[in-house]
Amino acid sequence: MEIKNFINGEFVSGRSSNIEAVISPVDGEPIATYHPSTIHDLEEIIATATEAQKKWQTTTLKERVQVFYKYKSMLEKNINFLSDIIVRENGKIFSEAKAEIEKAIELCEFACALPQFAHGETEEVSAGVQCTSERYPIGLVASIVPFNFPSMVPHWTIMNAIALGNAFILKPSEKVPVSAQYIAKYLKEAGLPDGIFSIINGGSDVVEMICDDPKIKAVTFVGSTKIAALVYKRCTANLKQVLALGGAKNHIILSPDAHQEMAAANIVASMSGCAGQRCMAAATLLAVGNCDQIIEKIVNEAKKIQCGNNLGAVISKEAKNRIENYITEAEKQGAKILSDGRNATVTGKEQGFYVGPTIIDHATPDMAVAREEIFGPVLTIIRCKTIEEALAIENSNPYGNACSVFTQSGSIASYVSKKASAGMCGVNIGVPVPREPFGFGGWNQSKFGSGDITGKSSIEFWTKAKKTTVKWNPEAGINWMS
Amino acid sequence: MEIKNFINGEFVSGRSSNIEAVISPVDGEPIATYHPSTIHDLEEIIATATEAQKKWQTTTLKERVQVFYKYKSMLEKNINFLSDIIVRENGKIFSEAKAEIEKAIELCEFACALPQFAHGETEEVSAGVQCTSERYPIGLVASIVPFNFPSMVPHWTIMNAIALGNAFILKPSEKVPVSAQYIAKYLKEAGLPDGIFSIINGGSDVVEMICDDPKIKAVTFVGSTKIAALVYKRCTANLKQVLALGGAKNHIILSPDAHQEMAAANIVASMSGCAGQRCMAAATLLAVGNCDQIIEKIVNEAKKIQCGNNLGAVISKEAKNRIENYITEAEKQGAKILSDGRNATVTGKEQGFYVGPTIIDHATPDMAVAREEIFGPVLTIIRCKTIEEALAIENSNPYGNACSVFTQSGSIASYVSKKASAGMCGVNIGVPVPREPFGFGGWNQSKFGSGDITGKSSIEFWTKAKKTTVKWNPEAGINWMS
Amino acid sequence: MEIKNFINGEFVSGRSSNIEAVISPVDGEPIATYHPSTIHDLEEIIATATEAQKKWQTTTLKERVQVFYKYKSMLEKNINFLSDIIVRENGKIFSEAKAEIEKAIELCEFACALPQFAHGETEEVSAGVQCTSERYPIGLVASIVPFNFPSMVPHWTIMNAIALGNAFILKPSEKVPVSAQYIAKYLKEAGLPDGIFSIINGGSDVVEMICDDPKIKAVTFVGSTKIAALVYKRCTANLKQVLALGGAKNHIILSPDAHQEMAAANIVASMSGCAGQRCMAAATLLAVGNCDQIIEKIVNEAKKIQCGNNLGAVISKEAKNRIENYITEAEKQGAKILSDGRNATVTGKEQGFYVGPTIIDHATPDMAVAREEIFGPVLTIIRCKTIEEALAIENSNPYGNACSVFTQSGSIASYVSKKASAGMCGVNIGVPVPREPFGFGGWNQSKFGSGDITGKSSIEFWTKAKKTTVKWNPEAGINWMS
Amino acid sequence: MEIKNFINGEFVSGRSSNIEAVISPVDGEPIATYHPSTIHDLEEIIATATEAQKKWQTTTLKERVQVFYKYKSMLEKNINFLSDIIVRENGKIFSEAKAEIEKAIELCEFACALPQFAHGETEEVSAGVQCTSERYPIGLVASIVPFNFPSMVPHWTIMNAIALGNAFILKPSEKVPVSAQYIAKYLKEAGLPDGIFSIINGGSDVVEMICDDPKIKAVTFVGSTKIAALVYKRCTANLKQVLALGGAKNHIILSPDAHQEMAAANIVASMSGCAGQRCMAAATLLAVGNCDQIIEKIVNEAKKIQCGNNLGAVISKEAKNRIENYITEAEKQGAKILSDGRNATVTGKEQGFYVGPTIIDHATPDMAVAREEIFGPVLTIIRCKTIEEALAIENSNPYGNACSVFTQSGSIASYVSKKASAGMCGVNIGVPVPREPFGFGGWNQSKFGSGDITGKSSIEFWTKAKKTTVKWNPEAGINWMS
Repeated sequence: MEIKNFINGEFVSGRSSNIEAVISPVDGEPIATYHPSTIHDLEEIIATATEAQKKWQTTTLKERVQVFYKYKSMLEKNINFLSDIIVRENGKIFSEAKAEIEKAIELCEFACALPQFAHGETEEVSAGVQCTSERYPIGLVASIVPFNFPSMVPHWTIMNAIALGNAFILKPSEKVPVSAQYIAKYLKEAGLPDGIFSIINGGSDVVEMICDDPKIKAVTFVGSTKIAALVYKRCTANLKQVLALGGAKNHIILSPDAHQEMAAANIVASMSGCAGQRCMAAATLLAVGNCDQIIEKIVNEAKKIQCGNNLGAVISKEAKNRIENYITEAEKQGAKILSDGRNATVTGKEQGFYVGPTIIDHATPDMAVAREEIFGPVLTIIRCKTIEEALAIENSNPYGNACSVFTQSGSIASYVSKKASAGMCGVNIGVPVPREPFGFGGWNQSKFGSGDITGKSSIEFWTKAKKTTVKWNPEAGINWMS
Repeated sequence: MEIKNFINGEFVSGRSSNIEAVISPVDGEPIATYHPSTIHDLEEIIATATEAQKKWQTTTLKERVQVFYKYKSMLEKNINFLSDIIVRENGKIFSEAKAEIEKAIELCEFACALPQFAHGETEEVSAGVQCTSERYPIGLVASIVPFNFPSMVPHWTIMNAIALGNAFILKPSEKVPVSAQYIAKYLKEAGLPDGIFSIINGGSDVVEMICDDPKIKAVTFVGSTKIAALVYKRCTANLKQVLALGGAKNHIILSPDAHQEMAAANIVASMSGCAGQRCMAAATLLAVGNCDQIIEKIVNEAKKIQCGNNLGAVISKEAKNRIENYITEAEKQGAKILSDGRNATVTGKEQGFYVGPTIIDHATPDMAVAREEIFGPVLTIIRCKTIEEALAIENSNPYGNACSVFTQSGSIASYVSKKASAGMCGVNIGVPVPREPFGFGGWNQSKFGSGDITGKSSIEFWTKAKKTTVKWNPEAGINWMS
Repeated sequence: MEIKNFINGEFVSGRSSNIEAVISPVDGEPIATYHPSTIHDLEEIIATATEAQKKWQTTTLKERVQVFYKYKSMLEKNINFLSDIIVRENGKIFSEAKAEIEKAIELCEFACALPQFAHGETEEVSAGVQCTSERYPIGLVASIVPFNFPSMVPHWTIMNAIALGNAFILKPSEKVPVSAQYIAKYLKEAGLPDGIFSIINGGSDVVEMICDDPKIKAVTFVGSTKIAALVYKRCTANLKQVLALGGAKNHIILSPDAHQEMAAANIVASMSGCAGQRCMAAATLLAVGNCDQIIEKIVNEAKKIQCGNNLGAVISKEAKNRIENYITEAEKQGAKILSDGRNATVTGKEQGFYVGPTIIDHATPDMAVAREEIFGPVLTIIRCKTIEEALAIENSNPYGNACSVFTQSGSIASYVSKKASAGMCGVNIGVPVPREPFGFGGWNQSKFGSGDITGKSSIEFWTKAKKTTVKWNPEAGINWMS
Repeated sequence: MEIKNFINGEFVSGRSSNIEAVISPVDGEPIATYHPSTIHDLEEIIATATEAQKKWQTTTLKERVQVFYKYKSMLEKNINFLSDIIVRENGKIFSEAKAEIEKAIELCEFACALPQFAHGETEEVSAGVQCTSERYPIGLVASIVPFNFPSMVPHWTIMNAIALGNAFILKPSEKVPVSAQYIAKYLKEAGLPDGIFSIINGGSDVVEMICDDPKIKAVTFVGSTKIAALVYKRCTANLKQVLALGGAKNHIILSPDAHQEMAAANIVASMSGCAGQRCMAAATLLAVGNCDQIIEKIVNEAKKIQCGNNLGAVISKEAKNRIENYITEAEKQGAKILSDGRNATVTGKEQGFYVGPTIIDHATPDMAVAREEIFGPVLTIIRCKTIEEALAIENSNPYGNACSVFTQSGSIASYVSKKASAGMCGVNIGVPVPREPFGFGGWNQSKFGSGDITGKSSIEFWTKAKKTTVKWNPEAGINWMS
């Protein structure tokens, strides 16, 4: 299969003569190729998208969302097919892939609802003077998305941005560009006019082109904190709006009064789901007081997990190596490996990139496994004496995506939720991803820019407000003498 | 075809041994029969609906609206079929019938959007004290609907009430009970659990039963002002919530600077659409200053309209007689009949109930045609010297559904919109029905009760708020010593 | 002091030649007299208020709320003076009286904020067609208020109704009409135009006049369920809008894991505050499992309370007798009186109407003390085996104002809050009165009508929406050739 | 008078040993001096503000806004005194100065209202799973403000940012630092805790320090587009949030059907108010068709204006020269000077910086006076044949603050409002500044960043959302067996 750009409603090859391969993490096999894009590809997209947007913005919000009602039906009907594609390109297991499409459907619902609440406001602000505020699209916008959610993360922005009247450019991860091809295909079939949704394939040079072109007015990025910061700076240096989501190191604060089975199952699901390659994954467990029984249960849960069965692959050989090195390093530093995922293989898929579920106990806050984003199925346990001590560790980490607490106490739940320095907190939930209409977004170095990337913040981000103040001469023409 | 009650997911005949016929206004032919309901039918509905609602209210709003996404698709797919049914039972023309289904689809969209904005609110109201307000369903509710919109008016309430967690009883007009049968069928096919939507057929005795039973917590009614007042009083005498929409006598204020063709076409469409049988129809034209040219164009437009072609039947022989009597009486009182719709017939449908488009000029405000709701394709013109004089006439009428102004002047448009005593005003629009998310509802004797019947008022009407104030002991359990 | 009506900005005596006395519950002394009103007083109010409202509604919401900024300052400056008046007329203790004024101040803040969020909404609903919804006042409205909160309950409605453009009539309780005199005085000093706020003094005949006059468009009532139902029916029989708040029998579900001191102190404060004369008072304690230690602490707390010191008087001799009879009856039926408030007296105020804090244990659900609203400082304890059993008792009571749970468990708190059949729930809070912007309102027989009496529901209740749909001919005048 | 920094509740001199003078434009006299700040001043502010904010954020929004109720009263009481200060330091006339304080009062009202609508949201997103979103402050923030509104522009951000829980640093314009001193004084007297509001005086080096320090999390800037772009880039290079408002070149589209007197008076007021030194000033008049009569009236209106009487000074000698050069240049290029404001002087204030009202007719779109922001009382007229031609000129200008149309036609008003490329549009209003709750903000190069600087966008900008997802084990503890 050749992955193509999507320009003005047509799939066309990138202009670079190079050919790049897309490798499936499941078995290390190549599954597709693509020609990277050049600046001329982007310019063509910008030209056609700009033209298409001029017309698109003259339609009403109520009309525009009709596309997404149809698109939602298509996602529902083709959910298994689309999930299989994700499995193949990303390596996650089927249920995880399916959850991406389910979230995409939910995001459709949010976009479809926009006409009911993203309306203007109006008030008589002084006698005979009426002020009104209404939303207008920004124009041409783009999203740069990561490899770990080939379908969900693009859907975070596509529908809201387009429903609100913009033309949209997607730059998929060059590691997982397949799902995006079907997004384009289905949107077109759902009735989206040509030019409103475009795809440009490529790597970091394409990212830079997007940052630099002033005709693209707003950009979202999702990826590592390092690149998020670069994109944030480069887009704003070109006077764009930008929202850039970065990495994470999420903490779970485990109180000894937690429901043991519920906690153990949730924590293991959180650390190992999507092979730990999600910015909402549990990374560090701050076990307060005597949590030995629960940790034992966690280890038992972890041992039930089998690579290739209920644990997918990590994205690449490099990723596998990086993760395993973290484990080895922690071991050298004196941490205790309760469950060891190194050297995992799956029969019949020996060339796939697998790491088993790994539990590292008795880590200290200064170890790399406790501080850095590993992005693999690895849980690092630090023992703490008090909730306050656990919170101090959580608060001092530079990221701020997620933090959960497991407890049966209303006080502890409330206290930790309030004090955690994270945008998304959970109580007895290991992956506290907000569902619509609540927005997705972290704090601190997990996000640069104002607002969340989904939910009601989207309305602010993807539009600009026109405020109109009107005064009529109240006497004019009231008495017709003619 | 036998029209049946819909109880617990099944169609069952009413318990009365009587058989009543449903007559098509198109040609006077019987098209269906039904057994009226007895109190035992209602009791069975109440019992099954109450039970079903207990479970329904434990589901989330997000889950509940999924039914209406499916239902919307079904309406879209079957729009022609459903429109034909409306034509047959009500007598309106196909495009008018289709507009009912289109509005039903739009009402679905509003209901589907509820999870995105009908959520709770929360705030820390004092140190450590969190107050939250969330919506709970009322329980068992009912709507009593009129003959003029067999499908649209039921849809005003069904989806919002059900989405918000209630069980719903529909009492269709005994003149047009057919469309409701398909609402029941499609809702079930869309996945609505049995017992959540019920139909009870019958006449005024069934209305009284609904008003009287205390287990039905809230009722909406749409019909004449006289019956609306009776239903309002009888429901509240039983301590229910009720919203009762009544009749109308809508005014159009015509300024001589109006765009002539646009005004004439719109005004005629407004007075003759649905054969004038809508509470939003133009009834009285207040022609300000010299509007002779526009009135000439209005008459020309009216004369283009042909019964049975672009003008449907009125609901019954009695209605036809009533309307014609109004015209005759006005003529006797000295008004001038510019276009006379009396004695209209349609070839091949000689037993149908038709009245042609009627324009009565030089009426005075005290004539019955200028004061009373005719509910037929009749426009009564009163000549006025000034906008103020026109507004005085409009303001003094006891109803308050709609009022439009035709003008090119921003001042006049703004002034009339502000001063009109009507819930729904139009500028250069003859039938100013608000589209979603804006609510439908008149003022004065056109509506009894607070709020509108659709739109965001629905959330207030169909739910009750639970306010929860929570305080946790902030010290409890923060320091684990064990 | 003579209590007067307030009509068109002036204090004038009621037209009845009778003279009635106002008795202070503190010591049984007369503190004021008044002439009751006749229908002619009400007619004069209606005439002047109707006229004043016509002008008031032409001002903007932003202008109107300026009165309440000033009024808030005046309440703050005179809080001690106003609290003393409440103490004298109602019998409650100073801190309780002061809390009324503090709440009035908070209600001012809500009204002052209305221009920032009670604005209109607007959207382009189809190409070139703009729909807008804006709020208009209803006209002339009235509130009928009870004796237990002479200042707070009037303030629930006065400011919102007036800010939203209405003219307002207050019918104070004839037992406590003094505070209202100062409301009138201060509102006038704060700049409210004459005629916008009126007072009519009198008893049930004045209530009936208000219900009957069709020129009063909306009425709120706060009092017993019996009278609330009568007012609801009588107002609606006259086609008014009405919201009528009735009585209560509030339950506290006590879980044995509750924080003992916190629970005991809160529960006693809730049952004895305002001498139990509040519709939010704790009435029945549903003690689940082994709560003996907490109940012991409750009794100890109760014994610290002294009439005339930290417990005020009840409103009348009749009230005192009624309350004591309830206790005596329960004792006869076998309940155990752990703390006995009968025969309380306060030295120096022997003619005051006092009942001490009373704890009745081992009551059964069928006893009058467990079922009926006592409206005195009496807590009835029923022992339950499970939370479910406690909820079943709570759910089966006909009222639905408040229900609290005391527990340290997040699960129990969440479960009880969700399952309780009450509009206002508390967790570890004995008197869960929602603070602004959350509305006050119960469920079931504690409230008749839709929505809450304060908070955002006020906007819906005190206004009617005008929906305006506008279409301009887009070509007109774009090209000026002249 | 020595202008000082305001640090931790105290006025202290800047650490630089230099002394700078503040010159009054009214008469060229020095009115104050100050020591510029060094990095050590900023570091001290950051340290104290950071500490103070930790405590401030633990208070509730309801508590925090109490400061601004008091502050509003103080502004009201001292409005004349504060206006005089503005006159002296900025040179505008008294009524214009007073309008700044009136707007500050209105901005207070918006901040005071925040607890009523800036609350959290909550919903049961799946069975037993509750998601809640609440606003948390960002921490330490700063605003850098321009010379043209010494009091109003600071108030755009101070109250909202502080009410929402942040600590705030103000960098006043070094040309007009006096008003800020009184802001500090009054806020402290109103009860604002020390450290929450700070002032740092100085020039561009202080701006750079603010941009660079990572402990300041969000910055707003108001000034020229050139500096706005620099600040936007420099703040984001340090990973901050920033909103930077720049310059403008506002167009008025004059339709020949406009009300002549109303248009003329408004347009002249718009171009000459605040001596044209406002980003909302009318700059270019696009006169469509035959507007000769209206232009004549404009010139007559302009000639009624007298420097020093109803026209204030411009900020500096340099500004005066720059403005006069623009006029001279336009004259050379062939434009016609209908009213010439060059060489204006005011008797007794010969050293003041005055420019009279200037009307330049028959300019062409390519002239500097038609393209560049003059920031003086100069109106440039371009004659156009059609509304479309006028809109094309407006649309092609790089700024996008304001655009007004003068017409009596509803069509033209609606068409121009919709098509203008500006954030703030007016109909028959020359200075269409939105009043609260509507936000202030332009489009294109008039603003960098997302959202508006006032109004509801403030909530998004000054806070970050914490989304909390909670799940309790519903069975836990329901049945107490002990």
